[in-house]
Amino acid sequence: MIVHSHFDINDRDHLTIGGADAVDLANTYGTPAYILDENVIRENCRIYKKAAAESFGADALPLYASKALCFTAIYRIAAEEGLGVDCVSGGELYTAKKAGFPAERIYFHGNNKTDLDIADAMDMGVGTFVVDNFDELSALSAEAVRRGITQRILLRITPGIDPHTHRAIMTGNVDSKFGSAIVTGQAMEIVKAAIAAEGIDLAGLHCHIGSQIFDIEPFSDAADIMVRFIADIRRACNYEIREFNLGGGLGVRYTEYDREIDYAAAIRDIAAVVTGYCKEHNIPMPRVILEPGRSLVAAAGATLYTVGSVKEIPGFRKYVSVDGGMPDNPRYALYQSRYTALIANRASAPRTEKVTIAGRCCESGDLIGEDMELSSAKRGDILAVLVTGAYNYSMASNYNRLPRPPVIMVKDGEARIAVRRESYEDLTRNDLM
Amino acid sequence: MIVHSHFDINDRDHLTIGGADAVDLANTYGTPAYILDENVIRENCRIYKKAAAESFGADALPLYASKALCFTAIYRIAAEEGLGVDCVSGGELYTAKKAGFPAERIYFHGNNKTDLDIADAMDMGVGTFVVDNFDELSALSAEAVRRGITQRILLRITPGIDPHTHRAIMTGNVDSKFGSAIVTGQAMEIVKAAIAAEGIDLAGLHCHIGSQIFDIEPFSDAADIMVRFIADIRRACNYEIREFNLGGGLGVRYTEYDREIDYAAAIRDIAAVVTGYCKEHNIPMPRVILEPGRSLVAAAGATLYTVGSVKEIPGFRKYVSVDGGMPDNPRYALYQSRYTALIANRASAPRTEKVTIAGRCCESGDLIGEDMELSSAKRGDILAVLVTGAYNYSMASNYNRLPRPPVIMVKDGEARIAVRRESYEDLTRNDLM
Repeated sequence: MIVHSHFDINDRDHLTIGGADAVDLANTYGTPAYILDENVIRENCRIYKKAAAESFGADALPLYASKALCFTAIYRIAAEEGLGVDCVSGGELYTAKKAGFPAERIYFHGNNKTDLDIADAMDMGVGTFVVDNFDELSALSAEAVRRGITQRILLRITPGIDPHTHRAIMTGNVDSKFGSAIVTGQAMEIVKAAIAAEGIDLAGLHCHIGSQIFDIEPFSDAADIMVRFIADIRRACNYEIREFNLGGGLGVRYTEYDREIDYAAAIRDIAAVVTGYCKEHNIPMPRVILEPGRSLVAAAGATLYTVGSVKEIPGFRKYVSVDGGMPDNPRYALYQSRYTALIANRASAPRTEKVTIAGRCCESGDLIGEDMELSSAKRGDILAVLVTGAYNYSMASNYNRLPRPPVIMVKDGEARIAVRRESYEDLTRNDLM
Repeated sequence: MIVHSHFDINDRDHLTIGGADAVDLANTYGTPAYILDENVIRENCRIYKKAAAESFGADALPLYASKALCFTAIYRIAAEEGLGVDCVSGGELYTAKKAGFPAERIYFHGNNKTDLDIADAMDMGVGTFVVDNFDELSALSAEAVRRGITQRILLRITPGIDPHTHRAIMTGNVDSKFGSAIVTGQAMEIVKAAIAAEGIDLAGLHCHIGSQIFDIEPFSDAADIMVRFIADIRRACNYEIREFNLGGGLGVRYTEYDREIDYAAAIRDIAAVVTGYCKEHNIPMPRVILEPGRSLVAAAGATLYTVGSVKEIPGFRKYVSVDGGMPDNPRYALYQSRYTALIANRASAPRTEKVTIAGRCCESGDLIGEDMELSSAKRGDILAVLVTGAYNYSMASNYNRLPRPPVIMVKDGEARIAVRRESYEDLTRNDLM
């Protein structure tokens, strides 16, 4: 086991991912390549679904926050596992539709839905809009009235929680582009507007406090504030909030230095807190929705690269350059995120060196990581970066005109292509002279 | 004039870009959209070409560093203007080839060329490889010998200059993933190896000290060190370096608070310094190559968005959300880059507010900028961000499954599509179930 139990070493001293030999995968599919262990994703879906049902009741629903990793096959898996999904754009809706995902189980998010997005989503029959702001509420109401329908919605509320996480992924505090804050009075204003809006059924509230959170306290604090707000709404508007979407944000173990989270236990603990607050404020327990993204898919993934050059700069450091980089994984450039790497073809070699793993882009900031523990590398080695299932493929670019890697799904040791490698022709398909 | 002379205001109070009405462009092509003034790009090419020839001699050649902005039509423009190009990947080479760019005027860069890249580039007849490291030199020599050819190369050298710019775009210092440092002795080692290597013609040296540089001093310092090194090579190896590639890096004016650079004057000043150092060290003046990227294309560009929501959070700030964001412009998220923005449909309205322009992605860090001067905005306004010609389209992703905007070329007030908008179908083209 390396960081997670599906990363292991076989008797050829090769890394295995879900039982598949990583060196064989690199030889078969080329590098760079994203590998995903389908069983890990399905197992995580089941943990969330079971824990949510046991802790919150049979009507509780985990949604897969598909911005973490989006392609058709992942929606099929989410559908088969009985989850809903959280989509944030017309592109995600289109992909979910192409995969045959049931539209009524889609929650449509985003701080800035366009009129076209709204129309497309209504055409599809998207079950629930998570409405961010007044501009959107007006546009949505007008379109629902025009169509003669009633659109079910949640309102995005900012409880004002600082989850002590990276600023860029901290979304529950008052100063946020998302939602309406309770403390400024804007949340109550939009609730009243939604109750009054024609063509709108305000089913409930949504909040999301951030991501990569390892403690229960921020969720507990958010639940406290949100349940008080639900009670306030009942008092002020004589209106019952029937659904409470707690968002996502539970952390993922990226390196051996990170804690591992027992998601089932975390959900039980959060449920106990929510139930307690509801009793305290004497309000009926709403249906609870959870929105895990990263914690369903991150650990399932690994990225395989080929080492191209190794450069030791005496007095400074050793650079190991690979055939990918920030185009397939921009998270170090964006957030200085930490990963675990190893040489897949000498997987048990002690990671005694500290190196900088550099990408192949013409940009100094194109690094997979600095001070990364690695065994001695040479040109031609297969380098694996673990726990890349979330926010790697979905954030990938074609910077330096590099084609995006394929996504290879592994299940019980067998591999298949879920997303083909981009071709050079794909890159120029829309170019006109 | 707003920041640059091709951004102006017409009698409808609309922003114009190269004479074209930005609101008309938004209505015709939709938003978000990248707009490029072709005349500005051509004029910049001519400034560099003329100044290089006058200052360094008729054989001097500016290369367009195409990673700044890469699609087929841009290579055609570079070819028509008599420039060479700097390519950094098989994808850029493929695009240049598709545009009919003459292969002998291509310089192939990169810290980690794969064996496939090397073979593809040789198949194309790429004129010059800029060799980064020993691993690449060996691979290149082997392939040249196998083919019975002699491949012209430059060696990438790190002079050890800190150009006082952002760390992520600082490449000339010793601790770099690029090239071989003079001070560690590794540069002389690789020069000797290249002179001795079979199938290799060492034509000269390359250095690149960084980007967004507004002073001549770092170039002057680099030239001093590089010319000394060329003299050292003559002494140590009895070998004449015939070509000196000074890289790129001259800065661009993004806001009214940035200086404007007179590129022709800068090139003259650099030439005076290089000529002086060559005389001092009694070496023949080598052919000089320049590699402007950003300074050829950045100012030519603007991005047009539609405002979707405006949210004032009392005591905090005002968020103006647009229908694009970090997927089409990741530079604020990556480097906290500053831009100029205005409401294109009320272009002369005083920019008296300080706002955060937020993108539409479900990520708090998805911002175009903070504390940006803007006039009062409302849903439906067209918001223009200026000077987005470099490192916007080329770094664009499909994060949140957003299709990449089209690139619209404007010339003498007339517009045409250079790159079509991506469709949802494009996004799922490679997905298998």
